[in-house]
Order: sequence, then C-alpha cells, then structure tokens
Amino acid sequence: MTTSREVRLKSRPHGTPSPENFEIVSVELPDPGPGQVQVRNTWMTVDPYMRGRMNDVRSYTPPFQLGEAMQGGAVGKVVKSADPSLKEGDLVQSFLGWREAFNAPAGAVQRLETHGLPPQAFLGYAGMPGLTAYVGLIRIAELKDGDVVFVSGAAGAVGSLACQIAKIKGHTVIGSAGGPEKVAYLKEIGVDHAIDYKAENDLTAAVMRAAPEGIDVYFENVGGAHMEAALMASRPFARFALCGMISEYNNTDLGRGVRGLIMAVGKSLTLKGFIVSNHTDMQAAFVKDLASWAASGKLKPRETVKEGIEAAPEAFLGLFKGENLGKMLVKLG
Amino acid sequence: MTTSREVRLKSRPHGTPSPENFEIVSVELPDPGPGQVQVRNTWMTVDPYMRGRMNDVRSYTPPFQLGEAMQGGAVGKVVKSADPSLKEGDLVQSFLGWREAFNAPAGAVQRLETHGLPPQAFLGYAGMPGLTAYVGLIRIAELKDGDVVFVSGAAGAVGSLACQIAKIKGHTVIGSAGGPEKVAYLKEIGVDHAIDYKAENDLTAAVMRAAPEGIDVYFENVGGAHMEAALMASRPFARFALCGMISEYNNTDLGRGVRGLIMAVGKSLTLKGFIVSNHTDMQAAFVKDLASWAASGKLKPRETVKEGIEAAPEAFLGLFKGENLGKMLVKLG
Repeated sequence: MTTSREVRLKSRPHGTPSPENFEIVSVELPDPGPGQVQVRNTWMTVDPYMRGRMNDVRSYTPPFQLGEAMQGGAVGKVVKSADPSLKEGDLVQSFLGWREAFNAPAGAVQRLETHGLPPQAFLGYAGMPGLTAYVGLIRIAELKDGDVVFVSGAAGAVGSLACQIAKIKGHTVIGSAGGPEKVAYLKEIGVDHAIDYKAENDLTAAVMRAAPEGIDVYFENVGGAHMEAALMASRPFARFALCGMISEYNNTDLGRGVRGLIMAVGKSLTLKGFIVSNHTDMQAAFVKDLASWAASGKLKPRETVKEGIEAAPEAFLGLFKGENLGKMLVKLG
Repeated sequence: MTTSREVRLKSRPHGTPSPENFEIVSVELPDPGPGQVQVRNTWMTVDPYMRGRMNDVRSYTPPFQLGEAMQGGAVGKVVKSADPSLKEGDLVQSFLGWREAFNAPAGAVQRLETHGLPPQAFLGYAGMPGLTAYVGLIRIAELKDGDVVFVSGAAGAVGSLACQIAKIKGHTVIGSAGGPEKVAYLKEIGVDHAIDYKAENDLTAAVMRAAPEGIDVYFENVGGAHMEAALMASRPFARFALCGMISEYNNTDLGRGVRGLIMAVGKSLTLKGFIVSNHTDMQAAFVKDLASWAASGKLKPRETVKEGIEAAPEAFLGLFKGENLGKMLVKLG
C-alpha cells in the first residue's frame, strides 16, 4: 500500500473559481493488479481549458465529476509494474494528473522518450500546448511568407511558442502580455513589438502603432479587447486562429460582446476556432520541427513552477490572474 | 441635348442616412462623342453595401464623392450610339445607376443578354445579389449534403436566393425575417422554419427550437442578435458565411458587440467574411445553375419597386427599415 494525495472537484464554481471549489484527499493505493502499473507523478499541468470542465456542461471534453479527482496531463515514473510492457523506473505520460500517484492499466499510460528534453517539456512546449501553437499557426491561420503575426497571451505556454515559431519562420511578430516582466520575456524571445496591454488604454491603437500596415494573422488566446484590436488592425484577408479566450472563461453570462465583427465582412477575414485534439495528425511534423528548433538552441521556453499537489489549485487559479510566465506547472516528484 | 436627373451625395450621414443627404439635380447631356454611347436607364438598384460608400472611408469600394452623382448597378437602353459595338435599342448593364441617362464610353457598359429573364433580374437574383448568395453558400460556407442552413435577412435580395438555393439542393432551411408578410414569403419559397424575429424576444431560443440538433451553416446578412443566435445554435464545425450585417451599417461607433464568440473555439467554427467581387470566377457556374433553376420554375424571386429617380433615396433608406420584400429596385424607364 502507498499513499497518494489527489485534488477533487468539491463544488462547481459560479464565475471565477476559488480554492473552496477544490478538496485535497489522501487515498491508499493497493499494489497494481495484473496488467496494471503504479505510477508516481513527477509533474502535472494546469491549463486554461480545464475551467470549462469544471462546469456541468457537455463540451468537447466531458465535465469533471463532483467528488472525483480531476484529470489532466502528467508525467511520472513507474514505481510498480504488473505488466510486461513497462518496468519500474520507466518514464511515462498520462492524463491522470491532479494526483500524486495512481494505478492504471498499462495501456492508459505512454512511455515517454524525452529526446534530451526535460520531462516536463512534454506538458508544455513539446506537448499539447506546443502542438496547439503549431497547429494554430500553420494549419488554422495558414501562415505564409511575409505575414505579420499578432499573438495575444503571448507570454503564456501556447502564446510564447506561437511567437517563437513565427520568429523562427522569419515573421514580424507583435505580442501582447500583461506587465513588464512578461514584456521583457517577449523581447528575449525576439518578439518585434511587445505590448503591455495593462499599460495601454487603447489596445487597438497600440496594435496599429506596432503594425501600421496591419496584421495578417491573429493568434487568439485572450478574447474581448484583444479580439477587437485584431479586427480593427487586420489587413484584408487576415486569418484568425481562435485558440482560446481566457478573459471569457469565468463569465457567468455571455459577457460584454466583441465589437467590430463587421470588419470581417469588408476585409474578407477568416476566423477559425480549433481544438488541438482534432489535429493530432500534425504531431509527427511538429515533433520533427520541434526537435530541430530545440537542438539549434532557438527555443527559449519558460516555466512557472508551483511545488506539491497542495499547490495545484493555486497554480490553476493563477492562470486566470496571469501569474504564469510561460508554462504553469506543478512539480510533484 | 437631352435632360437627365441624377441623385448626388449632398452630405455625408452621421448614423442613419436621411433624405437630406441626397440631392436630385437635372443635367443636360450633349450627344455622345466618338466611341461613346448614350444610355437611358430603365432600372437601378439600391443595395445595403452602398451605405459604406456614403462614408469618407477607404474600404473595398471607394467612397461616393460629395456633390457628385452616386453610382450603382443599372440596366438601360442605348438611345444614341457613336460606337460601332452598340446600336440604338441595345439593352445594356452598367454601374452608372442613380441617374436617368448618361453618356459613357461604349466599354463602360455591357450588352445584356437576358436569356428570357426580365432585365431587372440582372440587378437581383440573376446579378450581383444572386451571385453573392451562390458564392456565400457554396464557396464560403462550403455547403455539403445534409447541412442545416440558417439564413438571416432571409426575405431580402441575397437572403431569399440563399434560402432557395439551399432548398433546391435539398437542405433543411431556417430563415429569419421581420414581419408576417415576409414570413409568408419564406413559407412560399419552401423555408422549413420561418422565424419572425420581430415577434421573438429570444432569437437564440427560436433558432434552437427550429434546429434542435443545431445548424451547420449560417448565412449572415444582419449581425447583432442574429449572429449571437447562430453562434449559440451551431453544431461543431459549423461554417458562417459573413455576407453583411445590415443592423450595424448605421452605427456611429463599434456598436453593442457580439456575445458568445467564444463558442467559435469550443465548437471549431469557421467564420468567413467575403466580398462578391473577389469571387467573379464563379459567375459562369452561377449563370448555368441559375438558368436551369429558372427554367424549371424553381425560383420565386420577389421585387419591391419604387418608381422614378426621385424615389431612389427613399428606396435606399427603406433597406435599413426592412421595407423590401425581395430585391429593392427603382424603375426609371
């Protein structure tokens, strides 16, 4: 028997979630049964999309269940194995985060080949957030030579990789983030025009100063005023990859609304929402490109790390306060 | 010498235009010079997009000039010709509407082959509005078998053709228009669920009652609450053809905003604005399909006709009050 603490959904939030919506519970794990492994997680991820799963609404992922452990990406080590496919010490990835350890069928975890990257990279720039940036720019926004690219949430896990991919591909990049520390990071990763949206009272004007000729691609992570600025600053035929709208996730109604959508008509804009799980066919190309970029030292990923399972709710809540520079992670091991 | 009255832009409107923005002026036309023709217009069109040209803003069409005659589609007859390519009595089409007669180089007008349709059809369902409906459904919304189609402004020139094309192609069609007369017309053209938006206080609920499983295609002519209803009622991967947003054209600011745009992320929606003039390569296919639909009696176009050049401003202003059933036209001849 071993002990594991896990984070359960105690109550569903109305609006902005708070620590009271979570409960940390200790459970005893028996030895894994035949065909199972026991894994001790070393890292888990918190991501904005998890907010949607806290609501009792059927969406592209099912809701978290009240009184049950939450789920999400994690990497860990096999500590006991009752299946020939995995052995003690193997590094594995799973969707059984939000807990310190678990038993699961061997098929529910995947052996992780790190190719020299740190394991937690596979929860960030080498994992789902990285693929999201890649898919959004390349397939959804159909990035092409010469495009001027505007990224909101540019210092976040997805946004910062979108900026870096666009820079590696030679684009002029405008990135928006909140606060001087994030702006400094954007400059470090080569963003041409780093906008501190908290210091601007007219975001549209700020984007148009950065791109007097207009933008061709908008990578949307934020919503609201950022979307409006992108609509206003777009060149004809600009393409918007709608990845997320974190400013909207805690709304209890439909919110204030986005003005200027009429620009999409006159400028022949394309706005396209996407969910990375519908585009996993791009995984192989992404991994290949990522490996080459990482090997050449072109990527400068950042992490914001909270320690211990008890810090997981706080890490998650911090996403909505913009507390993360780069990927928000929880270190468990 | 002959006399022609023309409508000039007297002043630029702030918000909703009024009769005072227009001025009707008589001009004397000399005989056409060498290479020119003189045309007497028999029909002219007024279209919502012309509202944008009343502003002094560079858009996809240049602004009307103060003190000069406005422009727009017209059909008419050659009354004098000083060019061998056209002779007296020839039926021609031009962009020199908003006037009773004009002299122009022969190359500025096109001979009109009516293929048995009434000449004014080429200002409506057989012309630019018809091609707009065709392009919007087929290329922009990528209409495919089984799609449930929602059309706003469904009793208008473009919307009513969009409904009819979708019905001819076997789709379930939901159409929204204002008032019982328009709803009766929608039923006459086979719309499965005709919504009188003026009689609904929750348009989203009305669309969702009409399409409990959701819509796959939205043909947008109106904006505002209609766009919100479409976002809420969409099935995953729905496509929106953004043709126009007439409810927004007279705004003096960015308006109230569209709520629920976040739905585009979770449902992987595509919203695509378009301008028909970028899609004239579809003209040949459109004309071929239209001829076959018209010959088989499947089209039931309607017109709202005002008489005389002095009625042109009133016809135009009526578009924004929903006074037209089908195509709004001005009969000049």
